Amino acid sequence: MSLAVTGAALDGEVVGLRIEDGAIAELGPSVEPKLGDDLIDAAGLLLTPPMVNGHTHAAMTLFRGFGDEMALMEWLRTRIWPAEARLEPEDVYWGTRLACVEMIRSGTTKFLDMYWHGVEVARAVVDSGIRATVSTVMIDQLDPVRGEGMRPEVLESLDRIAEAGPRVTPSLGPHAIYTVSPESLAWLAKIGAEREIPLHIHLSETEREVSDCSDAQGKRPAAYLDDLGFLGERSVLAHGVWLDRGELELIAERGATVVANPAANMKLAVGGVLPYPAAAAAGAAIGLGTDGVSSNSNLDMFEEVKLFALSQKHASGDPATLPAAEALAIARGLRSPVLAGTALAVGQPADFLLLRGSDPELSAGDPDADLVYAAGGAVVDTAIVAGRVLMRARQVEAAEEITEQVRSRAKRLTG
Amino acid sequence: MSLAVTGAALDGEVVGLRIEDGAIAELGPSVEPKLGDDLIDAAGLLLTPPMVNGHTHAAMTLFRGFGDEMALMEWLRTRIWPAEARLEPEDVYWGTRLACVEMIRSGTTKFLDMYWHGVEVARAVVDSGIRATVSTVMIDQLDPVRGEGMRPEVLESLDRIAEAGPRVTPSLGPHAIYTVSPESLAWLAKIGAEREIPLHIHLSETEREVSDCSDAQGKRPAAYLDDLGFLGERSVLAHGVWLDRGELELIAERGATVVANPAANMKLAVGGVLPYPAAAAAGAAIGLGTDGVSSNSNLDMFEEVKLFALSQKHASGDPATLPAAEALAIARGLRSPVLAGTALAVGQPADFLLLRGSDPELSAGDPDADLVYAAGGAVVDTAIVAGRVLMRARQVEAAEEITEQVRSRAKRLTG
Repeated sequence: MSLAVTGAALDGEVVGLRIEDGAIAELGPSVEPKLGDDLIDAAGLLLTPPMVNGHTHAAMTLFRGFGDEMALMEWLRTRIWPAEARLEPEDVYWGTRLACVEMIRSGTTKFLDMYWHGVEVARAVVDSGIRATVSTVMIDQLDPVRGEGMRPEVLESLDRIAEAGPRVTPSLGPHAIYTVSPESLAWLAKIGAEREIPLHIHLSETEREVSDCSDAQGKRPAAYLDDLGFLGERSVLAHGVWLDRGELELIAERGATVVANPAANMKLAVGGVLPYPAAAAAGAAIGLGTDGVSSNSNLDMFEEVKLFALSQKHASGDPATLPAAEALAIARGLRSPVLAGTALAVGQPADFLLLRGSDPELSAGDPDADLVYAAGGAVVDTAIVAGRVLMRARQVEAAEEITEQVRSRAKRLTG
Repeated sequence: MSLAVTGAALDGEVVGLRIEDGAIAELGPSVEPKLGDDLIDAAGLLLTPPMVNGHTHAAMTLFRGFGDEMALMEWLRTRIWPAEARLEPEDVYWGTRLACVEMIRSGTTKFLDMYWHGVEVARAVVDSGIRATVSTVMIDQLDPVRGEGMRPEVLESLDRIAEAGPRVTPSLGPHAIYTVSPESLAWLAKIGAEREIPLHIHLSETEREVSDCSDAQGKRPAAYLDDLGFLGERSVLAHGVWLDRGELELIAERGATVVANPAANMKLAVGGVLPYPAAAAAGAAIGLGTDGVSSNSNLDMFEEVKLFALSQKHASGDPATLPAAEALAIARGLRSPVLAGTALAVGQPADFLLLRGSDPELSAGDPDADLVYAAGGAVVDTAIVAGRVLMRARQVEAAEEITEQVRSRAKRLTG
């Protein structure tokens, strides 16, 4: 199957693009369609790399607007955990399908997920056409015996996710150091190393997490994880609000990725945002994520990258902190080996966006500044993953049915 | 001219709406169109009040992305003021037209503007169909003699703006206490009181402004303005980042409105945001604005209201600060006598929105939380002002031509 895109604007030049077997085969001003190519006329559209959502809980579209304005632990205990106890695997499938629709509509073509029923998440990802790193979640409530009992199930889920095909990467998703025992974390780290798959965990989201860890373990969270063998090039540490300089240096040394989630951090008022200047100074790999819809409340990485840049300027008191080009590179997953965003180049996966160049928000001279500060996800006209058109003229297949499914399931779960 | 809207959803009920002479004549579940009505079939659309943008510089769409990431005073001195020196009245007309397109597209039907060539701003507002309070700007560089020389021109501009018709309210817009002499401020306050028109000024945006005022005048900015007779029910004070409790109590006592501009404050890293909890505790009237595009970089009040709520939770450390319903009321201009947003009720001006109810972002149980935390301006399908349809199915008349005009003019001004 081959696809040709004609007349797209790239860095002020009109280019064509040919896609074969899901990869970019040709790209440049003189590229022409070949006989038998499917065709996209991209006149007036801007060609750009897509966004990579570095941390989310996709199926939580089921819980949008459920318990807004509550503190993190109270919200988890009184709203989310009881509702999640009622979750059926099929709910997770549909919740994830809706998240995929929303991500496609706002220019994200790959995400790192952490949620229950990973097998259903993987199925939804496959059906939606998007890419994802899908976790097998683990919470043993700090009980190593319980954790040991869960291991066969974890391995089985991992194997089933691994069968989902080339657009799905299996990973291990222990929730956090305050919900998973050190024995289980060490075991997951070992499995992750053996299978060469990502480890995905929440880390240092609240100040309480840091003080509890320091009190109980005599060390801060990153050092604690490192001593369990958890930090490496495939480790993804979401939030990282309270990481200090020493922890960021350790994380950088291990090659692990910290993922900022500014909207969720501000909405839940956890007291800060990822200390980006310190993370950058340490040389840490960095990503950006929306977190779940229930703590954001959307999955729009264009909105998130603006919040990321603005919250960092606000925190540092310097408008030059986190310039647009760097914020955008992070949002595209280009500053992390795990997020592994791709560039527009021959041989790369054919994952890209076509933006509506006539939208008034894109009227400035600096395209990076436009995309970060002015545009919302609604500027995306067309989204293509592995050479397959997932959205054209803002229409995503089955979007209304999927929305309806989630609305009725949400009522059952939260009513 | 009469218009009927059928099948819209309002608070979970299906309603009809009839509009006569620019006002809501009938509203309710049993309202039917009459012979001769123009018709809008709003099946699947949600009826809501529109947004009121409490502080902007509309024509600065001409300067989008020009000098991003610079500190406020450096940016004004090295970029904006030199570029503004090249402004032709016609540039302001087209820049404002584009801002009106962007505001209509994101659900704003009224704005408070402060910019040069107010007569052109008013002409653009009239041609766009939107409503605005349009300022005659004054900057005398603290030179009262120069200020006195400007008075005839100010009055002439004010008279011409006043002739623009019922959708335009004339106002006086001295830039700030550090660019306008006390003699001119007192004169403007007097003219404003005589003509019963709004006064619109930047106040307490940077810490430097406060310390300079305290050093030179022996009092903080709000007290200084009050002693000049400037604070009253028609006064609009934009930013207010560094207002203290005493100033907020004084402002509340005078009935003046403070307008929060969180995106611009964070982007320019002025060190804070309007202290909302203190302003609310003092009982001050409050509005929300996007500021100019050149310091935001868009005019989307749906994005701004999310930033407003999130930045206040972040500042207070409490996720319950500024709940969605209150943030939305402020964004709709319902918490200020000058912004004067209107409700959906018989006898009120026929200014309202129809939102795409099938958009996935609107899938939650709490509609206010959806609109604040999940939706962007792109959920707006239809915008109606004074009974006239300014956008339908996201199409605004002449939007592409206006965008092209501004792009070519921006090149001349900033090139």
